[in-house]
Amino acid sequence: MASTSPPLKDELDIVIPTIRNLDFLEMWRPFFQPYHLIIVQDGDPSKSIMVPEGFDYELYNRNDINKILGPRASCISFKDSACRCFGYMISKKKYIYTIDDDCFVAKDPSGKDINALEQHIKNLLCPSTPFFFNTLYEPFRDGADFVRGYPFSLREGVPTAASHGLWLNIPDYDAPTQLVKPLERNTRYVDTVLTIPKGTLFPMCGMNLAFDRDLIGPAMYFGLMGDGQPIGRYDDMWAGWCCKVICDHLGLGIKTGLPYIYHSKASNPFVNLKKEYKGIFWQEEIIPFFQTLTLSKESTSVQKCYIELARLVKEKLGTIDPYFLKLSEAMVTWIEAWDELNPPTKHSSK
Amino acid sequence: MASTSPPLKDELDIVIPTIRNLDFLEMWRPFFQPYHLIIVQDGDPSKSIMVPEGFDYELYNRNDINKILGPRASCISFKDSACRCFGYMISKKKYIYTIDDDCFVAKDPSGKDINALEQHIKNLLCPSTPFFFNTLYEPFRDGADFVRGYPFSLREGVPTAASHGLWLNIPDYDAPTQLVKPLERNTRYVDTVLTIPKGTLFPMCGMNLAFDRDLIGPAMYFGLMGDGQPIGRYDDMWAGWCCKVICDHLGLGIKTGLPYIYHSKASNPFVNLKKEYKGIFWQEEIIPFFQTLTLSKESTSVQKCYIELARLVKEKLGTIDPYFLKLSEAMVTWIEAWDELNPPTKHSSK
Repeated sequence: MASTSPPLKDELDIVIPTIRNLDFLEMWRPFFQPYHLIIVQDGDPSKSIMVPEGFDYELYNRNDINKILGPRASCISFKDSACRCFGYMISKKKYIYTIDDDCFVAKDPSGKDINALEQHIKNLLCPSTPFFFNTLYEPFRDGADFVRGYPFSLREGVPTAASHGLWLNIPDYDAPTQLVKPLERNTRYVDTVLTIPKGTLFPMCGMNLAFDRDLIGPAMYFGLMGDGQPIGRYDDMWAGWCCKVICDHLGLGIKTGLPYIYHSKASNPFVNLKKEYKGIFWQEEIIPFFQTLTLSKESTSVQKCYIELARLVKEKLGTIDPYFLKLSEAMVTWIEAWDELNPPTKHSSK
Repeated sequence: MASTSPPLKDELDIVIPTIRNLDFLEMWRPFFQPYHLIIVQDGDPSKSIMVPEGFDYELYNRNDINKILGPRASCISFKDSACRCFGYMISKKKYIYTIDDDCFVAKDPSGKDINALEQHIKNLLCPSTPFFFNTLYEPFRDGADFVRGYPFSLREGVPTAASHGLWLNIPDYDAPTQLVKPLERNTRYVDTVLTIPKGTLFPMCGMNLAFDRDLIGPAMYFGLMGDGQPIGRYDDMWAGWCCKVICDHLGLGIKTGLPYIYHSKASNPFVNLKKEYKGIFWQEEIIPFFQTLTLSKESTSVQKCYIELARLVKEKLGTIDPYFLKLSEAMVTWIEAWDELNPPTKHSSK
């Protein structure tokens, strides 16, 4: 990153689900303009999205998705920001950064604008350490290292598949917490990045998230949400649970912490409650399912892992609600569509 | 903690292994003076330790330990700060804070002196959340909570057994890292506390550590180090591995992060290398042992867990070096000595 060219300029796409806010891209212009944007419109295809001058972008609405995927478009959510995962699939780049349009540039404690994308790239290009906890957190940062007692055999680390960034101002709370604490704001800047240990699940938020498509892309499916579905706001959670168990199985890492964005507005807690309420009790069974599942040795690629996971979802979660049978089928359809748009190369290990 | 009396004044002992530095207690006076100190002298019993006026303390040297424990004194290390664990055993309080005499009061980013003990007490009195990772870290801090997607059934948390604090200035590095990076200083104040997830081991440093004796005390054994032993500087690591697997088994939590102390001087890396070198390769086998062991359902108390662990150490680590056979015996002796000094009460679940 010594050159003046922005890091990974030709290897990263920024995926944004709809842009309802004209200020959004203006605010990010210094950081995003060098990169290619993929905008996935989540609602009415007849409405047009305004993109300010100077940005290099492609835009997909529902009609485009239907045209490109044909019957397989059924796996892409409609009228929900979960549709963003179509952008992950259509991209041809190695890295993806995805961000919501109500997320603005945050300031670090010194008052300087945070270049979120640059920090995500640092996180992704640096190994993860999921097998043992380092008490000084990210051992590869300037001024840090592995502490006494950290096994030397584990210091090389493993490739980082995803970088989960955080939010100042409006925290990412569920509807009940939003209702109970309407005034709570996150003002604490925690200056750290850490690897989420192997075997530990976490709530992955899609607001400020980067990942390596080559390493984990096919598992970054945001499920069936929104129009015609019984739940919403679990799209990124679903992807997070799936990605984490697959990363654990394949020996890949996921980091969380820096960078922060400024989350400008809370979504409506009453609307959210309606979207979430089934998820809130379903997750009490889904999470033990993910915590205890074992993928087979034969699942040696992300695609194979994901297909195995789809089968387990059908077998073990189908009893909760027929929704999970539909989701299991959509997971398979997603992989078929992914492979169609991303045919295996000679380098791929599928 | 609304009263003006220092928190847990009558329920906490501060355990210090020798005090070579007269400034040490003077610097901590505002914070430590209200508490009772237990000083365990690690070297020549004929040398005297100067304790400034105004402190309430008891001091034990090797002769005292021999007198109190008789033949069981063999489990307490000599000429090594590992002897501090005698203080954990002789204490009658519920909580212990232990600190090294080269650790001074650190300043937070605003320049204010950090009351390390107060933060440890906060950590200990607040539940831990080892079963799922909260991306905003400690959910019980002011201005924080559980994020969207955190299962509600896990939000009550579990009791916190230990609080592991960190160090500004000289980081706790092993001898090889000290030799490679002699000038590295830790200047990053990471404003967070987090629960180390279930199933994840960490390198527990004894420099700045607090714990609940009732919950985990009998597992806080610092092993056989120093005089007559083949290794040193693995006392706290050993205790950390044992405590973590026992906490995981019994459903208890361990936190790490705040508070920071200021670690004033690095120990000599050449001396450290001599103490550590066997540990550095032994740990490559010891850590997989701890990562994969399972304690039985019958081990329902810390003592029972520790006795089972001693048996497993003998069986599985005895092949590495005869040292582990001796250590296994010392672990049993430690529990016998603990139970002699801390006879079970009607409330105890042994």
